[in-house]
Amino acid sequence: MRQKIERLLKEYKEGTIGVDEFINELKWFPFEEIDFAKVDHHRVLKHEFPEVILCQWKTPEQVAQIAGKILERSNLLLATRAGLEHFKAIKEIAKDAVYNEIARTITVVREEIKKDDKKGKILIITAGTADLPVAEEARVTAEILGNEVELLCDVGVAGLHRLFLNLDKLKDASVVIVVAGMEGALPSVVGGLVGVPVIAVPTSVGYGANFGGIAPLLTMLNTCAPGVVVVNIDNGFGAAFAATLMNRKF
Amino acid sequence: MRQKIERLLKEYKEGTIGVDEFINELKWFPFEEIDFAKVDHHRVLKHEFPEVILCQWKTPEQVAQIAGKILERSNLLLATRAGLEHFKAIKEIAKDAVYNEIARTITVVREEIKKDDKKGKILIITAGTADLPVAEEARVTAEILGNEVELLCDVGVAGLHRLFLNLDKLKDASVVIVVAGMEGALPSVVGGLVGVPVIAVPTSVGYGANFGGIAPLLTMLNTCAPGVVVVNIDNGFGAAFAATLMNRKF
Amino acid sequence: MRQKIERLLKEYKEGTIGVDEFINELKWFPFEEIDFAKVDHHRVLKHEFPEVILCQWKTPEQVAQIAGKILERSNLLLATRAGLEHFKAIKEIAKDAVYNEIARTITVVREEIKKDDKKGKILIITAGTADLPVAEEARVTAEILGNEVELLCDVGVAGLHRLFLNLDKLKDASVVIVVAGMEGALPSVVGGLVGVPVIAVPTSVGYGANFGGIAPLLTMLNTCAPGVVVVNIDNGFGAAFAATLMNRKF
Amino acid sequence: MRQKIERLLKEYKEGTIGVDEFINELKWFPFEEIDFAKVDHHRVLKHEFPEVILCQWKTPEQVAQIAGKILERSNLLLATRAGLEHFKAIKEIAKDAVYNEIARTITVVREEIKKDDKKGKILIITAGTADLPVAEEARVTAEILGNEVELLCDVGVAGLHRLFLNLDKLKDASVVIVVAGMEGALPSVVGGLVGVPVIAVPTSVGYGANFGGIAPLLTMLNTCAPGVVVVNIDNGFGAAFAATLMNRKF
Amino acid sequence: MRQKIERLLKEYKEGTIGVDEFINELKWFPFEEIDFAKVDHHRVLKHEFPEVILCQWKTPEQVAQIAGKILERSNLLLATRAGLEHFKAIKEIAKDAVYNEIARTITVVREEIKKDDKKGKILIITAGTADLPVAEEARVTAEILGNEVELLCDVGVAGLHRLFLNLDKLKDASVVIVVAGMEGALPSVVGGLVGVPVIAVPTSVGYGANFGGIAPLLTMLNTCAPGVVVVNIDNGFGAAFAATLMNRKF
Amino acid sequence: MRQKIERLLKEYKEGTIGVDEFINELKWFPFEEIDFAKVDHHRVLKHEFPEVILCQWKTPEQVAQIAGKILERSNLLLATRAGLEHFKAIKEIAKDAVYNEIARTITVVREEIKKDDKKGKILIITAGTADLPVAEEARVTAEILGNEVELLCDVGVAGLHRLFLNLDKLKDASVVIVVAGMEGALPSVVGGLVGVPVIAVPTSVGYGANFGGIAPLLTMLNTCAPGVVVVNIDNGFGAAFAATLMNRKF
Amino acid sequence: MRQKIERLLKEYKEGTIGVDEFINELKWFPFEEIDFAKVDHHRVLKHEFPEVILCQWKTPEQVAQIAGKILERSNLLLATRAGLEHFKAIKEIAKDAVYNEIARTITVVREEIKKDDKKGKILIITAGTADLPVAEEARVTAEILGNEVELLCDVGVAGLHRLFLNLDKLKDASVVIVVAGMEGALPSVVGGLVGVPVIAVPTSVGYGANFGGIAPLLTMLNTCAPGVVVVNIDNGFGAAFAATLMNRKF
Amino acid sequence: MRQKIERLLKEYKEGTIGVDEFINELKWFPFEEIDFAKVDHHRVLKHEFPEVILCQWKTPEQVAQIAGKILERSNLLLATRAGLEHFKAIKEIAKDAVYNEIARTITVVREEIKKDDKKGKILIITAGTADLPVAEEARVTAEILGNEVELLCDVGVAGLHRLFLNLDKLKDASVVIVVAGMEGALPSVVGGLVGVPVIAVPTSVGYGANFGGIAPLLTMLNTCAPGVVVVNIDNGFGAAFAATLMNRKF
Repeated sequence: MRQKIERLLKEYKEGTIGVDEFINELKWFPFEEIDFAKVDHHRVLKHEFPEVILCQWKTPEQVAQIAGKILERSNLLLATRAGLEHFKAIKEIAKDAVYNEIARTITVVREEIKKDDKKGKILIITAGTADLPVAEEARVTAEILGNEVELLCDVGVAGLHRLFLNLDKLKDASVVIVVAGMEGALPSVVGGLVGVPVIAVPTSVGYGANFGGIAPLLTMLNTCAPGVVVVNIDNGFGAAFAATLMNRKF
Repeated sequence: MRQKIERLLKEYKEGTIGVDEFINELKWFPFEEIDFAKVDHHRVLKHEFPEVILCQWKTPEQVAQIAGKILERSNLLLATRAGLEHFKAIKEIAKDAVYNEIARTITVVREEIKKDDKKGKILIITAGTADLPVAEEARVTAEILGNEVELLCDVGVAGLHRLFLNLDKLKDASVVIVVAGMEGALPSVVGGLVGVPVIAVPTSVGYGANFGGIAPLLTMLNTCAPGVVVVNIDNGFGAAFAATLMNRKF
Repeated sequence: MRQKIERLLKEYKEGTIGVDEFINELKWFPFEEIDFAKVDHHRVLKHEFPEVILCQWKTPEQVAQIAGKILERSNLLLATRAGLEHFKAIKEIAKDAVYNEIARTITVVREEIKKDDKKGKILIITAGTADLPVAEEARVTAEILGNEVELLCDVGVAGLHRLFLNLDKLKDASVVIVVAGMEGALPSVVGGLVGVPVIAVPTSVGYGANFGGIAPLLTMLNTCAPGVVVVNIDNGFGAAFAATLMNRKF
Repeated sequence: MRQKIERLLKEYKEGTIGVDEFINELKWFPFEEIDFAKVDHHRVLKHEFPEVILCQWKTPEQVAQIAGKILERSNLLLATRAGLEHFKAIKEIAKDAVYNEIARTITVVREEIKKDDKKGKILIITAGTADLPVAEEARVTAEILGNEVELLCDVGVAGLHRLFLNLDKLKDASVVIVVAGMEGALPSVVGGLVGVPVIAVPTSVGYGANFGGIAPLLTMLNTCAPGVVVVNIDNGFGAAFAATLMNRKF
Repeated sequence: MRQKIERLLKEYKEGTIGVDEFINELKWFPFEEIDFAKVDHHRVLKHEFPEVILCQWKTPEQVAQIAGKILERSNLLLATRAGLEHFKAIKEIAKDAVYNEIARTITVVREEIKKDDKKGKILIITAGTADLPVAEEARVTAEILGNEVELLCDVGVAGLHRLFLNLDKLKDASVVIVVAGMEGALPSVVGGLVGVPVIAVPTSVGYGANFGGIAPLLTMLNTCAPGVVVVNIDNGFGAAFAATLMNRKF
Repeated sequence: MRQKIERLLKEYKEGTIGVDEFINELKWFPFEEIDFAKVDHHRVLKHEFPEVILCQWKTPEQVAQIAGKILERSNLLLATRAGLEHFKAIKEIAKDAVYNEIARTITVVREEIKKDDKKGKILIITAGTADLPVAEEARVTAEILGNEVELLCDVGVAGLHRLFLNLDKLKDASVVIVVAGMEGALPSVVGGLVGVPVIAVPTSVGYGANFGGIAPLLTMLNTCAPGVVVVNIDNGFGAAFAATLMNRKF
Repeated sequence: MRQKIERLLKEYKEGTIGVDEFINELKWFPFEEIDFAKVDHHRVLKHEFPEVILCQWKTPEQVAQIAGKILERSNLLLATRAGLEHFKAIKEIAKDAVYNEIARTITVVREEIKKDDKKGKILIITAGTADLPVAEEARVTAEILGNEVELLCDVGVAGLHRLFLNLDKLKDASVVIVVAGMEGALPSVVGGLVGVPVIAVPTSVGYGANFGGIAPLLTMLNTCAPGVVVVNIDNGFGAAFAATLMNRKF
Repeated sequence: MRQKIERLLKEYKEGTIGVDEFINELKWFPFEEIDFAKVDHHRVLKHEFPEVILCQWKTPEQVAQIAGKILERSNLLLATRAGLEHFKAIKEIAKDAVYNEIARTITVVREEIKKDDKKGKILIITAGTADLPVAEEARVTAEILGNEVELLCDVGVAGLHRLFLNLDKLKDASVVIVVAGMEGALPSVVGGLVGVPVIAVPTSVGYGANFGGIAPLLTMLNTCAPGVVVVNIDNGFGAAFAATLMNRKF
């Protein structure tokens, strides 16, 4: 872009082109070549982290190819919703790739992940064993994005003592992610106890009238506890990403 | 019916009819004249209480007419979903009728309601002011059906202290009815604290994704707290009736 | 907890700490160490029965591990939604484990199940062969929880005679559980005949507009028969547990 | 049409036009002028009965205008979903118009309605007072279409005795229409008792999870009683029309 | 039953029991032993045809066992939703069993199916190849129930000429069954052309917004063509059974 | 924009700013001041027609103010979903404003609407009186956008002759808009007869299972007739706008 | 048909039949034998292209048989939703058949596809890798129907720069097809940038609250960008067909 | 509480009670009297701000009574979803109450609202005039909670230039709230441009397939732009509250 403008300025100075021609030439350039990174100049996060690969619906070959390109220019890689076949394909181009079977994530970490002193801790609470995959996806994502993360499992509304036994962890968190498929009420309870943002993640796990996550989704949207926000069903990655943007010490 | 059988027996004895004619005559009688109350011979409750009038979709005249017939043979009357116009119509035939504007019930009580020593207390918990009409319908119903009732208002999941401040009331109850439109998780929390049946009543009150009560209904159905059962949206009457059947001291 | 308080009292007596420090120390303790069993002191049921394992979404290893811990302190074990692989894993640590293929339950019973004289009989009615698994889950659960149970199969609304032929069983029951996927109306009919609580369990079995159990669920919620309450689709366990809480002789 | 063909035949005979021109002229005529009544030559019903006016969404003027045209060529008129304002407009052009406030129908009957000896009786069963408008719409429609009709009110699944007390009416019917909003199971029960077609009409009347008639609609579609068919929610007219087509003595 | 009444009459005559004892003894008998076939005395159809087996959710053993019992007392057998494994099991006890792979029916016919002269022809119209299984289930059912049946395939709304080319078949039918998953409008078009009952069967076949048959179901319910009634999604059997009840010549 | 660039060029030529400053200044300008009309340079339509006012949810004052601004620079005005109160407000600032009560549109036309020779005719077909408002909104919109429009009313699937009687109109159209709430199948039938784009507009008018337009929407989406596309429920304006973009003679 | 009319005319001329007989003979012929192609005489498209085979729900044998018939009279063949097994079956009768694994299409092209000079270019935009199969189905269909097609992949709302970098392609298109499952907003954005019809195709691909394509479908229907129309979920073929009808240069 | 513990300590010191009695006395106190504010000790926000009144479903008297109590101990008051009648009631007890008719909020501000230097700016973007009430509720809430707020109206996806013209405002915001009913895609676009949390608020405003806000809700949940979270339909208050918790300068 700079070259083009320099050339245009030169031509203008030399009188080869007039104002009209100059403007005409410029007209489309911002859309054609605009340096979009500039729009995001304060998006520290994105600057430091490359594109994330959503493996679902991609072939292992496609995933490996994208991963290869990312690793040429980055020391970090995150791929989500990855099957074993995706991992095998990436493994061939990156021996140090790590597969988390529960989270279904593939990660490559070739430099120490920078911690930001202004960031606090993200607490991930999960209601049941069945919600663990989504919670783990959130944990892996949040960690590679540079957050300190703590995971608290099997905390349910029907047995509040588990939650109360961990009140100190709640008090320490800067953001709380609550992952639940059958215990859709958990974010409400947590939201009533803490004074930080609570990100609720409904999961599609549950029988009967769970309806693929609609039941906990509706419960979470209808919460009366202010400070609770919701992301898509099973979207552990999205919750972790949003939590990263919110993660700031008091 | 008795007459008919007596007559048939007489004719048989006299030889006017044989076994075949006798059976033939009997064939349809059970359906025609069967004393259905007998089927219910252990339904103490129904024996003691007359039909309840659902005023909705009935004209004041229709309601007053039914009420008149009931009061001819009973000292108790309960009408639900009653508007002021229904009350006025009943008032004309029963000066002692009482209207509960919040519960939208009309009651006539002309004898002391018998309490059953084997029955304990029904606790009705309501999450918000907006749920009060349904909770009141349950209270009025449960009381006229002979239960001791206690009402605990404005108890929410997002502010659990209100609930914990009333733990003693929870401990005393034989059945708990939880009425909630926006706090669909409340029955789960209550179900985790008590050892008696919890009847959850979703209400259609709430904004956004309440969807006319579907959200709390689904939340309640998906509860992980065993011992929680659900009735129809806004069905305070049904909850109270079922609670009466379950109400037994320990 | 006792130790901590004893120590604090000692320090206070000795003048090492004042009232303020004492209170400060106490502030969090109830949440940290509260003896939750006390909250439940009248929950006879829970006292006598250990945690139930929901096998679905758990690996055989996870299930076996939990089962092992339970059997260390209990002579009874119930695991629901269990596959054969879960059974095999438990079998290795408990030779006397029993698998019910239809109910998909695993049970271990190492002492005679105590019957409570104040409890009556639970009648489980099922509309069709396809509803049997849910009904069986309810039966196994209710029995291990100490109830006398009777199972009545293949009773349908479209053929009422099967029901009427068993009126005596209806009359004998203290609670009735009705399991139905295509015959969503059955609980209404039963509710009209008995004077005890009826727990309706919709099942996801059925073709066409059953919609995974939504159709019978809605039918059951809309019942006009008072005394009918509903649990989640396919939730045989929940129905049995709630029935146990309601089960009391007249 | 006849004229046109006569003219064409004449021209052809005279040699003015050839086969090609003849065919060309004919090409579109069947669509343009076809006597559609001929397609329906065995539709006795339609032959004897004029168009029915659906008043909803029509202005009184529009309704009166259509009614006027119908009455020019017919001695019978049926208008459904009519408000008082529609009736007033028709009254001005037909002094003998009759308004049924419950059914919301307007009828004009200027000749004796012919009964067909081969037709039997249509029995309309309604579950509750609230379902009466739809049942009445069906009754008025069925009667003006020449059927003998009997209406049986307030028959519910939760109180089967009302139904059994009227078994003889069920036995006499050639077609049964069952109208129900809260008692969606009623058509199943009726279908199990009779050997004739049962037309189920869900109504939008009901509270809670009736959902504008979806609940009884699903119940009715899922019936296990063969011989039960369903029409649209609140569609009393449609049920009566279909019943008329099915109404034949045994 | 006869024995019991004879004994009671004898005892009464002998003076062993009085009228009260007599009535008391009778009280429950109608429900216990009532000859339900008598209720159905005009259900010619049912009399002539035994129970139909719904194989889905039944094991081959269960199906074979039921089939065996039916064949002991009947020369006709119909099983629907049958897999090959069900057929094999039946084949072992009935060598002459016939499997229709498309309809997924098993039939045994050991006597000539009686035709009723008063019955006309049932026309089954299907919109596409994908709807054929449901249409075939209807055809097999209707034929074994004693109807003359004609099947007309691949008739679509978007190509009306196929329908118009078969107008004569429409004119000949006493009942029309229209089976469609993507062409939900077809029953409306057919209903506008014929003067006999039209039974619409939505199928779950279709992509995109078919939603398991909801789309054609709604289309069919909303038809403006009077005389159209609807059965459950994919319910070819139910359509054929209802059609049989309606099938009467003009 | 031109001024700014001229000034920058001048400053650059004079040496006041360098290339870097120049680029820096430019960086945001395309987003800040880009002449978006240029992006649309071939959008003939938008060039010739000003913004359309959606009156719904706007106060009469807001609408009048926007209308005033539009009329300062344009001779044409279209406002949709307008109530009488909106019309009165506009009338005060534009005496020549015209209100179409059925379409609920306000139009001002101060110059002859240019017709484009390359455009053909748009045919709007409506199934029933109740669909007329949406059809009229489409007609008014299409006409002010410069199309020749023909409106064909009361054409239904259940009575195809009305459609066939107007085949010539179908043949003449360049685009067909089909508006239907109860006759959701109409676009399929039309799509099977013509060779031009068919825009289907579902309407929310209908009773029973219309569900606010969902039923016809699903029917239209599931059409098998290629060439049929769908717009939002009741969106007559959108259909007309899209039709204008598609309207081209053959 | 011609023969029949010639014969009738001859008989009429000879006096064998009169006008009445002549008309009577004609009455049914238009429906029986009408040359439907004539109705479509301006449907250039259909004339030039044979029936398309929807392979889904058809056996390979059925597909091959239909394909064989089509290839007897046509040099072009298109089969959609084809599996490998369908391809193998067609391959046996047409060695030159081509299978597109992503699009799941089978094509045979035995003559140069005619391009129409009046047609412009169809641009297909797809939001993600997962939407590619539907986009490819659209591309293959549009090309065999004689359109020039360009495919633009991986353009998302959350990263608008990809779209802006391709503004020139948007400007060149005569019709734009936007295929998206997770980026349901993309058609709105595109519709705001172009002045030609935009056909939105929701896809069923996506996790969480995509709900089988309902989410993008609703988003697309609710677009505020005029000129956007919608087809069924995953209906790439339908989009391409409709686009072909709309494809005209400016 | 302090008194009680002091007394207990004194009694213990004096030997009146032992450790057991001491513990026994303490057992229930945490639930009975626990100072819940302590649980929230770092919830700066809640400390500084009193309870918010949701006026909907409350009578003016109820609202005024609660407001009176709050104003006794606080200089700030916020009431949401308030009608004019609620305002009048509060006005009587607080002359300085202010009513915002669009936002439907009542506020009393009797001290300068403290700004927190660590907080940045909240940007509220609204897509259309119809979304203004929800956006205003968010603005009023956010301001009284101590945030700097900027409101940007009428920014739509179909006309992106409005958004791009305000890129600087996007760059300055610490949190962005996007309110949209018909432009459900707007949060995705905004989320793609900024690097801060985006809170999406679906509104129930829109016609056709908006379905009371379900359409924009689903669109927002399905966003591919990371950093976007969702609150309940129309929940401007909740969005502002959550935004306050997230509002921190970079």
